[in-house]
Amino acid sequence: MELWTEPQMASIRKMLNPRSIAIVGATPRMQYGGRFLAAALKAKDRVRVYAVNPRYDEIMGVKSYPSVTSLPEGPDVVAVVVPWDQVLDVLEESHRKGAGSAIVISAGFAERGVDDRRDLQRELGAFASTSGMRISGPNCLGLANVKDDIWATASSRGAEGLTGPIGLVCQSGATAFGPFLVRAVENGIGFSYIISTGNEADLDFTDFAHYLLDDPDTRVIAGFVEGFKEAGKFLEVAKIAAERGKPIVLIKIGRSELGARAARSHTAALTGADARYDAIFAQYGVIRVQDYDELLETAHLLAHTPKPQVPGIAVVSHSGGISSLTADMCGQAGLDLPLLGDEARDGINGILKGFGWAANPADVTGFANSESFPRIMEHMISDPRMGTLVVASAGADAQAQQVISQRDRTDKGVVFLWTGSRDAKAGLTQLKHARIPIFYTPDKLARGLQSRLAYHTWRERRLADGFATTPPRTAPQDAAITRALGLGRPTLSESESKQLLAAWRVASAREYRANSAEAAVAAAERLGFPVALKVDSPDIPHKTEAGVVRLNLRDAAQVRTAYAEILASAKAYLSALPLDGGAPERLPDSVGVPRVGGGDRAGNPTPSPLMGEGRGGGEFAAANALAQARISGVSVQEMVGDGVEVIVGVNCDPQLGPVLLFGSGGVMVEVYNDVALRRCPITRAEAQAMIAEVKGARLLQGFRGRPAADLEALADTLVRVSHLAMHLEGHLAELDINPLMVLPRGHGVKAVDALVVFRST
Amino acid sequence: MELWTEPQMASIRKMLNPRSIAIVGATPRMQYGGRFLAAALKAKDRVRVYAVNPRYDEIMGVKSYPSVTSLPEGPDVVAVVVPWDQVLDVLEESHRKGAGSAIVISAGFAERGVDDRRDLQRELGAFASTSGMRISGPNCLGLANVKDDIWATASSRGAEGLTGPIGLVCQSGATAFGPFLVRAVENGIGFSYIISTGNEADLDFTDFAHYLLDDPDTRVIAGFVEGFKEAGKFLEVAKIAAERGKPIVLIKIGRSELGARAARSHTAALTGADARYDAIFAQYGVIRVQDYDELLETAHLLAHTPKPQVPGIAVVSHSGGISSLTADMCGQAGLDLPLLGDEARDGINGILKGFGWAANPADVTGFANSESFPRIMEHMISDPRMGTLVVASAGADAQAQQVISQRDRTDKGVVFLWTGSRDAKAGLTQLKHARIPIFYTPDKLARGLQSRLAYHTWRERRLADGFATTPPRTAPQDAAITRALGLGRPTLSESESKQLLAAWRVASAREYRANSAEAAVAAAERLGFPVALKVDSPDIPHKTEAGVVRLNLRDAAQVRTAYAEILASAKAYLSALPLDGGAPERLPDSVGVPRVGGGDRAGNPTPSPLMGEGRGGGEFAAANALAQARISGVSVQEMVGDGVEVIVGVNCDPQLGPVLLFGSGGVMVEVYNDVALRRCPITRAEAQAMIAEVKGARLLQGFRGRPAADLEALADTLVRVSHLAMHLEGHLAELDINPLMVLPRGHGVKAVDALVVFRST
Repeated sequence: MELWTEPQMASIRKMLNPRSIAIVGATPRMQYGGRFLAAALKAKDRVRVYAVNPRYDEIMGVKSYPSVTSLPEGPDVVAVVVPWDQVLDVLEESHRKGAGSAIVISAGFAERGVDDRRDLQRELGAFASTSGMRISGPNCLGLANVKDDIWATASSRGAEGLTGPIGLVCQSGATAFGPFLVRAVENGIGFSYIISTGNEADLDFTDFAHYLLDDPDTRVIAGFVEGFKEAGKFLEVAKIAAERGKPIVLIKIGRSELGARAARSHTAALTGADARYDAIFAQYGVIRVQDYDELLETAHLLAHTPKPQVPGIAVVSHSGGISSLTADMCGQAGLDLPLLGDEARDGINGILKGFGWAANPADVTGFANSESFPRIMEHMISDPRMGTLVVASAGADAQAQQVISQRDRTDKGVVFLWTGSRDAKAGLTQLKHARIPIFYTPDKLARGLQSRLAYHTWRERRLADGFATTPPRTAPQDAAITRALGLGRPTLSESESKQLLAAWRVASAREYRANSAEAAVAAAERLGFPVALKVDSPDIPHKTEAGVVRLNLRDAAQVRTAYAEILASAKAYLSALPLDGGAPERLPDSVGVPRVGGGDRAGNPTPSPLMGEGRGGGEFAAANALAQARISGVSVQEMVGDGVEVIVGVNCDPQLGPVLLFGSGGVMVEVYNDVALRRCPITRAEAQAMIAEVKGARLLQGFRGRPAADLEALADTLVRVSHLAMHLEGHLAELDINPLMVLPRGHGVKAVDALVVFRST
Repeated sequence: MELWTEPQMASIRKMLNPRSIAIVGATPRMQYGGRFLAAALKAKDRVRVYAVNPRYDEIMGVKSYPSVTSLPEGPDVVAVVVPWDQVLDVLEESHRKGAGSAIVISAGFAERGVDDRRDLQRELGAFASTSGMRISGPNCLGLANVKDDIWATASSRGAEGLTGPIGLVCQSGATAFGPFLVRAVENGIGFSYIISTGNEADLDFTDFAHYLLDDPDTRVIAGFVEGFKEAGKFLEVAKIAAERGKPIVLIKIGRSELGARAARSHTAALTGADARYDAIFAQYGVIRVQDYDELLETAHLLAHTPKPQVPGIAVVSHSGGISSLTADMCGQAGLDLPLLGDEARDGINGILKGFGWAANPADVTGFANSESFPRIMEHMISDPRMGTLVVASAGADAQAQQVISQRDRTDKGVVFLWTGSRDAKAGLTQLKHARIPIFYTPDKLARGLQSRLAYHTWRERRLADGFATTPPRTAPQDAAITRALGLGRPTLSESESKQLLAAWRVASAREYRANSAEAAVAAAERLGFPVALKVDSPDIPHKTEAGVVRLNLRDAAQVRTAYAEILASAKAYLSALPLDGGAPERLPDSVGVPRVGGGDRAGNPTPSPLMGEGRGGGEFAAANALAQARISGVSVQEMVGDGVEVIVGVNCDPQLGPVLLFGSGGVMVEVYNDVALRRCPITRAEAQAMIAEVKGARLLQGFRGRPAADLEALADTLVRVSHLAMHLEGHLAELDINPLMVLPRGHGVKAVDALVVFRST
């Protein structure tokens, strides 16, 4: 599937670089239509601007046309500022006229939360893709080509900005042209483009971001999103961004339920589970921040400092208290302030002559405001342990000039922590003008530096490793999928689930099917005691709760008793099912908050090379009274004793696609929610990173005298399960392998229980 | 012990409210001495200001005296701005002259990190307390009585501030008069006093804070500290502050090792383990923040809003994107945005007429800048679910006036999230002037509101519960202490440790002492199998590693074998000890990172009512060859099988005093560091809060089919151990009860292993 087409990108190019703009609904009053016209007229020497409003002959000094049709040309951009029920008509008329693109300011669509308006919005989207005249909005505030000073926006915050290498794309127009624009201007931060996408009936965040990846004037993409219409497109954008070295910095709403609730009321795109976004952003190198200032400061930092050669941060201040707090926050963010080398220390001591501290952080007292300061900075930045210099101070123009010169002389990053007032003029104005990245509090500085370091580290590794790809399906995998889907049920039984897994070479504990107590005893003897007995049924996904599992059976007598007991339990359980014979309601969650049902994974294994598929006969006939309940047998399974329990799962998020979960097993995963998440597919390196991320996985390394577990096999399994999820995309809803036992090194892994759930379509 | 004396407070009062100030080392140049003189002269119509410098007759228009002795009076404050080696002389001369207090600006003392300067600083401190002429500094920047506009400071940032109810006390003068003062002025935030304490040779943070608790013009105490000289005094200040309802808001350096390293190079007070500070701050209601802006904004919020009647937050904005992000950050901070009641919703819908969203958060579009906005705010704030109103916008003066009027009409808190530029004049200036608490990013707003809510909730509960007190020691406790200390050893054996614990009614597993294999078998029969065998020796604190523990012995034969084996292991272990017969070096940590030695607590119990104290005889005589190694016997202990393992410990921090640790047992505590910390003593409510705080303690509540454990007995034990720690203060270094088994409800707890370590003095 082609995610972006050339004509689509061409339409965006026209929208962002128009030679003509028509404003339908222009008025002399400074409301949406009037503000849009006024903003566009700023560029009237370069852009042909047309007002369209039959009620006026002239507005703000330009002729007003009665309709789009009556315009002298088909404009590059039509701004639509008319009541919601006239929008589609205007779009159709504009298309007939040959317009290149449209910006729909009008509101009253999906954000109203009612069906007919949602439908109408869908019509706008359909019209855009059919006609090829692409649309931004509705319910947006337009956009700005800041570098060429062309403002196609209805914002009330004016049409003034600084040019710079940050491309800003926001769903919320009031946020784009409100806090972001005004604070960027205040802080000397410049944009290439500012784009608001509103409800995204047609073009969305990822479409504009994709355009900006090709834009030579954009080095960093910054955004504010409430939800992604299609996460797959976003991931593709993130991949290309990584290849080109253009960082993406985002605020993504949805940290809390409250945010999700509020976002739903505003933008049509649904907000997904936040932890999955966090995981995917980390996996794809997207920097997530959480406030206006942090977004601007981090994007500006990334745009105006080189990649650090070494991670070390050097901090110099006029104050011990300020340098202490700065060091403290850097340490908390995981940054390294290396000890100063002898040469640098001696050099600085030669200047300080007993005052202050020649260290890292350095407290150079009043020397920070002296002629000696350049030599101090030079000593610090020349130290090979230091990759970035932070000046934490608030001096006058002289100090600012020294810092700017230092930055111009070095290929290392130079950053300022401004400790004075934000409305200071002396010093600060010069630093802003010179595009020195400035932070105002030590914690924001530290987080910014950490994001920058993490981004470059991530990218280097990613360029080396590549992104994961999914291998083509093998014939056995095709067959397994056909067979599993052919069962025509949303839930597979344990043995069906394990058979599916086997096609991706995920081994399970050995097991035999039995349909009589004596057959169970025979199977147990073949496996060797102790064994486990379980009823195998797609209608009993939570076997422990249903009482149809018996573990650690040590002899034939115990097997016989257990066989009788679990059949009785199965009967009792199934007779309580709804009359249609369907499965009882599933417990929720399997990936977000991992499902840890009962005791079945307290170190207790299950079997796999299935045998004895025959039904009926022996005591098993008793269960046939429950024929509608699809008991496919009783399985006799080996007990897998010497492994470490873990959980592996997949949840197919409707927005984000299949997300793989790995967690420590047993009670810990539930108590500590100690899990790692990744979007499928994953690379082997990502599998290893997942294992490293889970604290409880320390047990796998031979913790407290246990033998080291087979981490290689575990990593392979995670990769293969991620492939399975991709191969089954569109069908799979959930997959749980819980527990997966990781055996001692060289012995692989064994699935003890497994559950596959397909989408009910 | 009296922590503060009347004369000391009187000296501070003079320092903060002087009628006369002498600056020793005043100069015409605008360096420290000149700046101090210039700042003091601002108040020359109210304060007699004297320059002292033999090199001048007159400085800045005032007479310069050759010495303190030659002054016409003993001034209330002597500012000392002379080289370090003359400071003590000036202080002595000032005292003879009858001066009331001194501010030592001069640096060159403990912050230099060398012994003689540290000693000299100690001399200053001793002189101050002996003479009664109290000192702030050295290495400080002085202080300001902002409300009376008296500036006794050498700061280079000028002497201008706004009057308000925040008392600011900082060890770092450059921080107090730098970022804090200039940003407070910029943001309309006012102070009663600004005090820098520098190296704290005499008066420290807590002394000034204690003074401010009595000051009617101070409603909130804000501070920046790198370490506390005496944590006990700080806790006392926190208690009084809680009683009076004056919140303390602090930046405390030491979040990371880097911060600690930097702080050591600056201020003499050592920085302690950060997690303990966090725990103690929470316990004593101290609000910890981490940057300049957050300290100011939070203190200002607390000073200018009433206690919330209900926790609910109402948010109203002109933008859906802004209200979504605000709601999201509030949710992430744990705040509640209740659904809007019908009445408020209908009322607002009546105004919006189809635009925006009448919800919480509300998006009222352009109505936020209309005449209807007061009615919208009124609807929201009148909703009984709402305790606080947040306006997230950036309007002009008219909107600001509406919000100010709303604040003046209600007894609920009204807070502004300003989404415009920080250098905006319209609107923002009025809000600042009216002392409306203003935040600039949704996350800071949310954290501020959360701190405010948590403070008031904490205080209410604390006023009801009271602070913990330590009961007097009982006679058996006295006897147990005498006996334990009488052993003359820093490390007690397991049985000695348990005997000590018994005096605080901490039960241990049943045990008998045996000195022959047959005696061990007899003891085991008396206890009932299975049993555990352990060597009891103060020289083998880590018994599992030494191989002197055998668990789950099921019959007499196993007991005999185990007896022989562990004696052999003990012999091998002890023969490897250093020749002086001392204990092998202890493993570090017991509270900060909990010590989880070996397998002894994997569900395995120990005994307590000790019997058979006799030594020698039988095979035990064999061990007598190791007489110097103090094996006090082999103990035979019951296995405590049906409890949940936890760890209880005490670490006596040299700065903070005894800190109690409670954690989940087993491997989890080590992997997840899942522990709760409190300063001793604790109340029963605090014990319960500790248990609730530890995630793994969910196992105690009957998780996954286990019986509920005896939480009452556990809470009692935590309280009693905290009393033990207080009763042994000065002697105790560390205490570990690991594991403590918590038995099913009604059956109490049993210490299975215990270790007491005294300070080696």
